[in-house]
Amino acid sequence: MSFPSDLDIAGRAMLQPLTEIAEGAGIPLQHLEPYGSGAAKVRLEAIDEMGDRPPAKYVVVSAITPTPLGEGKTTTAVGLGMGFSHIGKRGVIAIRQPSMGPTFGIKGGAAGGGYSQVVPMELLNLHLTGDMHAVTAAHNMCSAALDAHLYHGNESGLDLHRITWRRVLDVNDRSLRNAVIGLGGRLDGVPRESGFDITAASEVMATLALCTSLQDLRERLGRIVVGYTTAGTPVTAEELKVAGAMAVILREAIKPNLMQTLENTPALVHTGPFGNIATGNSSIVADRLGIRMGDYLITEAGFGADMGAERFFNIKCRASGLAPDAAVLVATVRGLKAHSGNHRIIAGRPLPDAILDENPDEVHQGGDNLRKQLENMRIHGCTPVVAINAFPGDHDRDIAAIREIAEEYDARSAVSTHFTDGGAGATELAHAVAEASEEESRFEVLYPDDMSLRDKITTVAQKVYGADGAEFSPAAAKQLDSYEANGFGNLPVCIAKTHLSLSHDASLKGAPTGWTLPVREVRASVGAGFVYPICGDMRTMPGLGKSPALQHIDIDADGEIVGLS
Amino acid sequence: MSFPSDLDIAGRAMLQPLTEIAEGAGIPLQHLEPYGSGAAKVRLEAIDEMGDRPPAKYVVVSAITPTPLGEGKTTTAVGLGMGFSHIGKRGVIAIRQPSMGPTFGIKGGAAGGGYSQVVPMELLNLHLTGDMHAVTAAHNMCSAALDAHLYHGNESGLDLHRITWRRVLDVNDRSLRNAVIGLGGRLDGVPRESGFDITAASEVMATLALCTSLQDLRERLGRIVVGYTTAGTPVTAEELKVAGAMAVILREAIKPNLMQTLENTPALVHTGPFGNIATGNSSIVADRLGIRMGDYLITEAGFGADMGAERFFNIKCRASGLAPDAAVLVATVRGLKAHSGNHRIIAGRPLPDAILDENPDEVHQGGDNLRKQLENMRIHGCTPVVAINAFPGDHDRDIAAIREIAEEYDARSAVSTHFTDGGAGATELAHAVAEASEEESRFEVLYPDDMSLRDKITTVAQKVYGADGAEFSPAAAKQLDSYEANGFGNLPVCIAKTHLSLSHDASLKGAPTGWTLPVREVRASVGAGFVYPICGDMRTMPGLGKSPALQHIDIDADGEIVGLS
Repeated sequence: MSFPSDLDIAGRAMLQPLTEIAEGAGIPLQHLEPYGSGAAKVRLEAIDEMGDRPPAKYVVVSAITPTPLGEGKTTTAVGLGMGFSHIGKRGVIAIRQPSMGPTFGIKGGAAGGGYSQVVPMELLNLHLTGDMHAVTAAHNMCSAALDAHLYHGNESGLDLHRITWRRVLDVNDRSLRNAVIGLGGRLDGVPRESGFDITAASEVMATLALCTSLQDLRERLGRIVVGYTTAGTPVTAEELKVAGAMAVILREAIKPNLMQTLENTPALVHTGPFGNIATGNSSIVADRLGIRMGDYLITEAGFGADMGAERFFNIKCRASGLAPDAAVLVATVRGLKAHSGNHRIIAGRPLPDAILDENPDEVHQGGDNLRKQLENMRIHGCTPVVAINAFPGDHDRDIAAIREIAEEYDARSAVSTHFTDGGAGATELAHAVAEASEEESRFEVLYPDDMSLRDKITTVAQKVYGADGAEFSPAAAKQLDSYEANGFGNLPVCIAKTHLSLSHDASLKGAPTGWTLPVREVRASVGAGFVYPICGDMRTMPGLGKSPALQHIDIDADGEIVGLS
Repeated sequence: MSFPSDLDIAGRAMLQPLTEIAEGAGIPLQHLEPYGSGAAKVRLEAIDEMGDRPPAKYVVVSAITPTPLGEGKTTTAVGLGMGFSHIGKRGVIAIRQPSMGPTFGIKGGAAGGGYSQVVPMELLNLHLTGDMHAVTAAHNMCSAALDAHLYHGNESGLDLHRITWRRVLDVNDRSLRNAVIGLGGRLDGVPRESGFDITAASEVMATLALCTSLQDLRERLGRIVVGYTTAGTPVTAEELKVAGAMAVILREAIKPNLMQTLENTPALVHTGPFGNIATGNSSIVADRLGIRMGDYLITEAGFGADMGAERFFNIKCRASGLAPDAAVLVATVRGLKAHSGNHRIIAGRPLPDAILDENPDEVHQGGDNLRKQLENMRIHGCTPVVAINAFPGDHDRDIAAIREIAEEYDARSAVSTHFTDGGAGATELAHAVAEASEEESRFEVLYPDDMSLRDKITTVAQKVYGADGAEFSPAAAKQLDSYEANGFGNLPVCIAKTHLSLSHDASLKGAPTGWTLPVREVRASVGAGFVYPICGDMRTMPGLGKSPALQHIDIDADGEIVGLS
């Protein structure tokens, strides 16, 4: 008997009315706005009204540097959240909303998996409550205002060659990456080069994720820099007089979405910023709400701990003022073996046989990656717990090897079988996280606001990535100087590099040493509130393959969705 | 004391819970899906379950050829719907969803006006339940699939110069009208000319408006023609294998949205196809639902009766099988005086003094337009009622002149003051419509399916527009031949011409004669189900002016919206 598909499992879920989920989490029902039967928005007023409830322990879920296999970070976050109810505690989960582009491109859907899912999965993977679309609309409203500004005389003196603001769509469409717009005739705008990114890569998305209130969102939107004048002066959305309209468009999208897991654990699904050029973390407002909703708030940070968790600490927590009580590092036997560099693994292909053999030495060898990520938690003063996401067929001695690595760093570890067993499979992990959360928090950000941008980048490169240092191209150096001259020097940095290595080179597994981080160029998301140095090629608009998932997604004779899995 | 703004009036509305609105209209509550507190979606299952309820009288609201003043068609539809409750009957209203592009461009919002509004107005004017965004997403998914198809080898042999499918966004953005996409490098798609239309102009929007069920939608989406091979063979969305995914994206959007008027009359707000290149009518599924919800279903058709009502009869009713019981023609004293051609009226400027003087002769002179539109109702076998949308200061003898014109055509007429008085101001109109609806319906479409496309166009031009005939450019003739060869000849025609004249020339007021309709080119919306000849310049992507509405739209210190009016 084969394991059922995610869609099959999700389809058999017994959903609770969201009013019951909300009541159980202490959300005043007058602040709950149902969107269909599967999701509800929570008004931000609820956060203040719930302010006298004791705060939950705040737990971030991250992982070793991912391999093409995926380590199961989302399933672990969901499973752990469910696991707490099995040890008499109330867990709450905060995750990002999946992007529709990849849903129809490669994956066919993402909402956790197996018996650790947020449901209804088709709602989560499609429009949900429309937040992604609102981000698209707000972003493109700014673009239209910008091009209308050029058309009506360009009073600000924007340099056509220094416009940084593009357009976005939530679709995988490589043909929109680079475009010449404003063609036609005199009435059809000003011809110029531009292009589209996927909505998840929009600065508006990052801004929505990092704001703390509607007024804060409004102010951040006004600070968005859309380009520079010929004299090098930044031009903002405020100057285009479009920031107010953008805030109005986002007035519903700022409210976190309440959903539930297969076991009726409350799950907040809110915002979905890219994990390379942005934070890859769900929203601050969702976390501020979630922290009043139970005993443990489990929030997920994208990619490996050097990426998602580092931004969680130094960008998200810096902006929110919240401090984590523990950090879960998800690791798998096969993932650590892959980090040994001995295997060639390709997504979608069967695993090489050798990686399934018992080989604790190889786990230790690839374990350098886990060691570095454990260290990365410690240098932020955050207590790590290693979650061993176990697969059927994993060998005990291989698992023991992971536990040994954790012990080297005085870290707790726990085996979790949430994928096959749901919350019942995550009780050991829940206990370990509960214990870790009791330790006194010594959380601190890695660098102060007033450190120079170069030093911030070098600090992250050296302390988190394990680099010898960072080197800056002439273009990057010039940009950094200009950003500091423009007053952006106090922003934190969000280093855009591959997520497949601690370094900038995806082929370097484990914990590479003896290398220098090459910063090719630097960009600024001034509204969202960070500067992002670019180290390598960053795709901000995916493409569709020859047989994309969309070709298999359809409705059946009963109107039910097929092919989303 | 000045008349309060629409937003002020809307803000003071006493909304009823939508469950009560739905219950009053016989909608089974298990088929009601609340979206926030202001709107709910109704599952299509409700239509069948309500099938044993007696059908409402089906009333289409159209108007004389509009002047830059606007005749108040939407306010009349809303006012009439409310008026029925003042004469002991249950009215139900079906209108289109406004497009966000113009909301932030020129108008700042549209939802009726004065004391005849659908509320909450900010919900109606912004995302509502996300249908517009779903149309955008489905349309652009097809575009992405098309360009991926080209990129991965163009197996269908699509001719790059004969691709008709573009992209859409719900924003006024002239700079996207014409673009070259696929630039960059080898991995960034196939370079070609293309561009964007506003979402309301998407064939997907027209398809959603004209489908009768989810399965019908799925089939129509598959029939969408995206372009032609070098041999002239049409290539469809079905061949791109994207029609199923599009249907999945539209699975929620197909459900009509239930809202309410200021007086708690049920209002269905669903789809918003363009009024020039598409039908300009709200959806068939909303009408099929609404017709089971009360005694009178008031459905609005865009632009003047030669445009919206003609398409209502010959495209929408042909597809739905529903037959109207009466047609309301909205006329104003000032509108008919404008049709005399004696005044120069510019939107947004004060009216010329002369148009406010008593002058029944001038009403009769401009009244030729009303006469032709009355005739247009009669030739479809539909009983007309003239709704005189009265303004403070209108002279009794001018109003009497309109009544005289109605009497020439044996048509009822009624003065309505719904704008200032709400439903109480529309009781005379409600009585007149009730009486007209009791007459035996002799509705018939103007031409049979199997008439040639040329003859269909000529028939509409002669009988509805009052032209001597139609003439076809060589390009148009070639396109018509090719459509008939491809099997599209059985489709009805949707003639794209200016809405500001019965002719193709916006400067010709009244009821021009002695002219011929010039058909410049012809396009086909095969999925939606019509062929559209183009007579004049049709803008399918508006632009932003120098001081667009968006510059004044913002949130205030309490987070409330300002500037939407």
